[in-house]
Amino acid sequence: MQKIDVAILGATGAVGQRFIQLLDNHPWFRVAEVIGSSRSAGKLYGDAAHWVLDGNPPEDIAGLTVKSLDDEFDSPLIFSALPKEAASTREMQLAEAGHIVCTNASANRMVGDVPLLLPEVNAEHMGLIDVQRQNRGWTTGALIANSNCTVMPVVMSLKPLVKYGIKRLHLVSEQAISGAGYPGVSSMDILDNVVPYVPSDENKMETESLKMLGAFNGETIDELQMIVGATCTRVPVVDAHLVNISVELAEKPAIEEIINDWTSYQGIDPISSLPSAPEYPLQYLTQIDRPQPRRDRDAGKGMVTSIGRLRECPILGYKFASLSHNTIRGAAGCSILNAELLAVKGYIADFKPISEPVVSH
Amino acid sequence: MQKIDVAILGATGAVGQRFIQLLDNHPWFRVAEVIGSSRSAGKLYGDAAHWVLDGNPPEDIAGLTVKSLDDEFDSPLIFSALPKEAASTREMQLAEAGHIVCTNASANRMVGDVPLLLPEVNAEHMGLIDVQRQNRGWTTGALIANSNCTVMPVVMSLKPLVKYGIKRLHLVSEQAISGAGYPGVSSMDILDNVVPYVPSDENKMETESLKMLGAFNGETIDELQMIVGATCTRVPVVDAHLVNISVELAEKPAIEEIINDWTSYQGIDPISSLPSAPEYPLQYLTQIDRPQPRRDRDAGKGMVTSIGRLRECPILGYKFASLSHNTIRGAAGCSILNAELLAVKGYIADFKPISEPVVSH
Amino acid sequence: MQKIDVAILGATGAVGQRFIQLLDNHPWFRVAEVIGSSRSAGKLYGDAAHWVLDGNPPEDIAGLTVKSLDDEFDSPLIFSALPKEAASTREMQLAEAGHIVCTNASANRMVGDVPLLLPEVNAEHMGLIDVQRQNRGWTTGALIANSNCTVMPVVMSLKPLVKYGIKRLHLVSEQAISGAGYPGVSSMDILDNVVPYVPSDENKMETESLKMLGAFNGETIDELQMIVGATCTRVPVVDAHLVNISVELAEKPAIEEIINDWTSYQGIDPISSLPSAPEYPLQYLTQIDRPQPRRDRDAGKGMVTSIGRLRECPILGYKFASLSHNTIRGAAGCSILNAELLAVKGYIADFKPISEPVVSH
Amino acid sequence: MQKIDVAILGATGAVGQRFIQLLDNHPWFRVAEVIGSSRSAGKLYGDAAHWVLDGNPPEDIAGLTVKSLDDEFDSPLIFSALPKEAASTREMQLAEAGHIVCTNASANRMVGDVPLLLPEVNAEHMGLIDVQRQNRGWTTGALIANSNCTVMPVVMSLKPLVKYGIKRLHLVSEQAISGAGYPGVSSMDILDNVVPYVPSDENKMETESLKMLGAFNGETIDELQMIVGATCTRVPVVDAHLVNISVELAEKPAIEEIINDWTSYQGIDPISSLPSAPEYPLQYLTQIDRPQPRRDRDAGKGMVTSIGRLRECPILGYKFASLSHNTIRGAAGCSILNAELLAVKGYIADFKPISEPVVSH
Repeated sequence: MQKIDVAILGATGAVGQRFIQLLDNHPWFRVAEVIGSSRSAGKLYGDAAHWVLDGNPPEDIAGLTVKSLDDEFDSPLIFSALPKEAASTREMQLAEAGHIVCTNASANRMVGDVPLLLPEVNAEHMGLIDVQRQNRGWTTGALIANSNCTVMPVVMSLKPLVKYGIKRLHLVSEQAISGAGYPGVSSMDILDNVVPYVPSDENKMETESLKMLGAFNGETIDELQMIVGATCTRVPVVDAHLVNISVELAEKPAIEEIINDWTSYQGIDPISSLPSAPEYPLQYLTQIDRPQPRRDRDAGKGMVTSIGRLRECPILGYKFASLSHNTIRGAAGCSILNAELLAVKGYIADFKPISEPVVSH
Repeated sequence: MQKIDVAILGATGAVGQRFIQLLDNHPWFRVAEVIGSSRSAGKLYGDAAHWVLDGNPPEDIAGLTVKSLDDEFDSPLIFSALPKEAASTREMQLAEAGHIVCTNASANRMVGDVPLLLPEVNAEHMGLIDVQRQNRGWTTGALIANSNCTVMPVVMSLKPLVKYGIKRLHLVSEQAISGAGYPGVSSMDILDNVVPYVPSDENKMETESLKMLGAFNGETIDELQMIVGATCTRVPVVDAHLVNISVELAEKPAIEEIINDWTSYQGIDPISSLPSAPEYPLQYLTQIDRPQPRRDRDAGKGMVTSIGRLRECPILGYKFASLSHNTIRGAAGCSILNAELLAVKGYIADFKPISEPVVSH
Repeated sequence: MQKIDVAILGATGAVGQRFIQLLDNHPWFRVAEVIGSSRSAGKLYGDAAHWVLDGNPPEDIAGLTVKSLDDEFDSPLIFSALPKEAASTREMQLAEAGHIVCTNASANRMVGDVPLLLPEVNAEHMGLIDVQRQNRGWTTGALIANSNCTVMPVVMSLKPLVKYGIKRLHLVSEQAISGAGYPGVSSMDILDNVVPYVPSDENKMETESLKMLGAFNGETIDELQMIVGATCTRVPVVDAHLVNISVELAEKPAIEEIINDWTSYQGIDPISSLPSAPEYPLQYLTQIDRPQPRRDRDAGKGMVTSIGRLRECPILGYKFASLSHNTIRGAAGCSILNAELLAVKGYIADFKPISEPVVSH
Repeated sequence: MQKIDVAILGATGAVGQRFIQLLDNHPWFRVAEVIGSSRSAGKLYGDAAHWVLDGNPPEDIAGLTVKSLDDEFDSPLIFSALPKEAASTREMQLAEAGHIVCTNASANRMVGDVPLLLPEVNAEHMGLIDVQRQNRGWTTGALIANSNCTVMPVVMSLKPLVKYGIKRLHLVSEQAISGAGYPGVSSMDILDNVVPYVPSDENKMETESLKMLGAFNGETIDELQMIVGATCTRVPVVDAHLVNISVELAEKPAIEEIINDWTSYQGIDPISSLPSAPEYPLQYLTQIDRPQPRRDRDAGKGMVTSIGRLRECPILGYKFASLSHNTIRGAAGCSILNAELLAVKGYIADFKPISEPVVSH
């Protein structure tokens, strides 16, 4: 099987590095182009990138020459880890030029015909790609976004509860430093400290969750009608965002019923068979002091969301804690999973999906 | 002026050490007796205590011989930093024997005739001491408790809002490791991690707050009628508990009105003149990313509660963050302030309050 | 191929857990018995162990019933993660009873006929097993130790330099908290702090290194004649010990020559082909700010030692930093690698080594 | 008594803030001018500075308008917290213009006629000011530097040992993040990590220490003839640098003798009476696990250097650990103490030293 070439925008940044790490030895995709800022362009990737993840960059990628964002790219599939400003127009241009652009940037997430995709949560939002192409006169290109990294543990844990009627949602996050990129949070601000505010994340929690949990009506997304209030805080943790969630449901399922909804949840076929998907995307931890960022972030290679402490909330009815790895499930891993779904659904031109994408877990 | 002799129960533990540190050079009180476990009894304090605070113990205290909990004590005033089990009966015995016992232990906090005292919040609960003495046939002794350390930033910030009618309260704490004493939290559990559960604190948040904000009716405390739901988490911070508070009020004061209520708050006379009291016990920080544990815990020598981020909450109406130093305002400092109030109010036998207890800040 | 049954002493502790984690899906060994303290004995492992590593214990192990240290064991191979006191006599008894005991405990490391084995460093010390059996009249049993976890990055990096004549060694370590087990280091002692002393490790650095780098003369180990001075400090890092090493050599090789000695080093056949061995056990990092604990500890699944910053030392001639994962290469992983070597060398009765133990890396 | 006006260069940075904090309520000096970058100039200090120390800036300083580095200044005394580049020429210009400039910048430290002053270590180097003025034709101005923050615990602890003949010095530091300023070290680089390299500090350790411990011969400084080898590492600690020191002495004093040298050390008159000087600048801690950054950095309001673990070193004879607060004793506090010494010695024009500068400790 011929792998599909992939370009990574913002490849030298923290999320760009995570894309490269996760795509190392990917069965379908091959990193062919790395794109950086004008300061990095022309250098070897190994020289241009200050690698902030564990170990060193893969040797074949270290030897690639960094391209400029203004260049044209050969890869049919593009992953974007661009900062918001750079992303806002360039991603649309590249989609218009025929590329499938899976972006982690926030710039276009709430645009009406851009799907905010998370396979296990709203695979049917893929249909918005056809709307997008029709709206814009595109044939092979498309722009698909994934959500903010703190929204991820919220929507992952709530999706199986939508059937009970979600009415109100109270969220308090404890977020890892890697969510701010590199150099990101100064150590002077976070060692032996908590910062009770994360710029712009509270607003994203309150808007992106409505779109992600909404329904595709054939033309647009009907946002879920619920009231969301979010407080976002930063804690001295390297990776993984923990969210303390209180939720009001129209129906009153038993605690055990909800836990069963979570542990049996798989999303629609063939998602659980995609290379980057865990067999079950949610795990419920029965220990009273879990989930914990350091101990649970790598569950399912960082793609499983861990939930714990489901119990009664005197205010809204139910409360629990939900945790996802913010740069894997919450960013690069999700974008890759989105692309895998698009690939098997025929959205990537010239990609011949293997007959049986089933993988063993 | 002759200082009043003080005994400290549980003197070798983390809170006991904080008592000793805060009482060093106290204008009214003098540590005369230190009491430890049977393992420590008979040793010099400097040898028996593994000092976990900054620096070393004061030299005069280091030279005291540790007494046993079964001993009799000469000091009219006793501060207790005992663990719950040890506290439950011994504190009552000592009160019965005529001592004023100001305790930080949780054992007797919710006993009906034991005041859960915080001078700026409920100084009038002192009246319960007379009830207690009458109930039990005591004349000079009494048992006075202070609350759980995480309850402190909650009741300190809510007291000025009681007048608006507090109906519901949603709390998510981010607590420091020192709240668990020494050795307390294993570093293996908290480095690069968050623990989303603190044993027994959620229940204390939901019960002690009702008593503390309640009204003394001459015989008992009428608890405040409000609904409280709490989630308590532990973060890698040395000192200070931060609580994310959402509150529903019967009235709808403007944001500026509430801020003004906080910054002008002083409690009743003569509290703000007591040696350990700050002139204003609440400060409102206007920076969007405050209060922060490391930067704000030492405000007012650890006795000022810092509030920030007051804004609308789509769920309950108002939300904000409140922070107190957990082992000063939240434990030893509060007990000492309680004792100062009792002293000027004449509850400590033979104590001649100085005519003008006013201190400069 | 039939796997060999393995028993783990001290299975519920931090190092015992690491044994279980590393042996999960091991190609040759299968955990059949888990042994704990009298408090744990009789319980299911999943209930008895407070799992401190990531995730949860493997399900098949969680279902084993914990045995008592006084029981008899069926497994021919035993890994010991016992504390020193418990280890001192029981390990010898079990070796006498015919078991191959690979221990991480310090109790018997410096006993004359007990090999202090690290395959890449002193595989020939295996010969001491024959001496041991002859001395003690044993036929199938044996006791084999691995070194202190902080000694590991020292001897791993120095082995290729022995040929130059090591004369003096100055060591300053920066050690992870996991080296002290669980609960181990109190968070109150290490958050925002360094502790400039690690009980008993300095002495181990100065004695075990001489034995490990020594030569087996057919009867005993001739210790390497060098002078070692060590300072051991604890830092707020979860895993991996970093040692700042200054070394005086009799010869004066060029910097590049030493780096080449390291990067080409493999130890004798067939070590690099053993299941737990990395192809090259040493890596030299060229970045000026490496090795770093968080970024380099997992190199080679925790079995590669990372070296960096080799440069002139005005005092002793050469200096560099060396880092190993303390609970993998420095403890459980090393014991397992020792057992693999013993297995292919025929020291484990009834073990039929597979004809070609070569593994791909 | 009229206070002397002071200007602070680089006032918005981390060290500049420490100057402002330490000068709040200083008995002799008054911050009259704050100078920042062109981006800050013209703004109120409270708006321009992102305050990274505890609490908030003093209110009177928050209300000052930030001046530009190109402005002229009225204050006779200037403290400089400028970055190296900005410092290199501007500080000389200001000294030439008649100001006493006490700088923390490294730019001019090793210039022959610039004293690298630390009152307790080399007060007699003040004589170099007269040489400097003569060399350059200045009358009232002068430039005086203090050393790198990591050199401070080294020279403070070695000064009393110079009499024994220091021959060789082996240093391994564990440095706090605040040494790199703000934003300085990225949290992504230091959480759960150690960085075994601090740019340019090793060289400063090996050069500045020779000058500081040298002797003023009436014209220049005769550097101390000793061999120094330094390794500098960064650890996740907020404040205070710990240095592991091995030293070779020509004479062989007993351990107790050295400890006595330290604990009795005061420097020459009238240093110990200066407002910012501790009575004894060195303390020896007898606990085996001290000094520790978090517990000992605030000794003597951050001006006392803490020493511990003096013992035999098999390589160089003696070893111990020494710790100083890096932004107080190691930076701003030292500059202020230098200025206080200059003031009483008559180097600051128009300053009338009070007749008895003795302060109580």
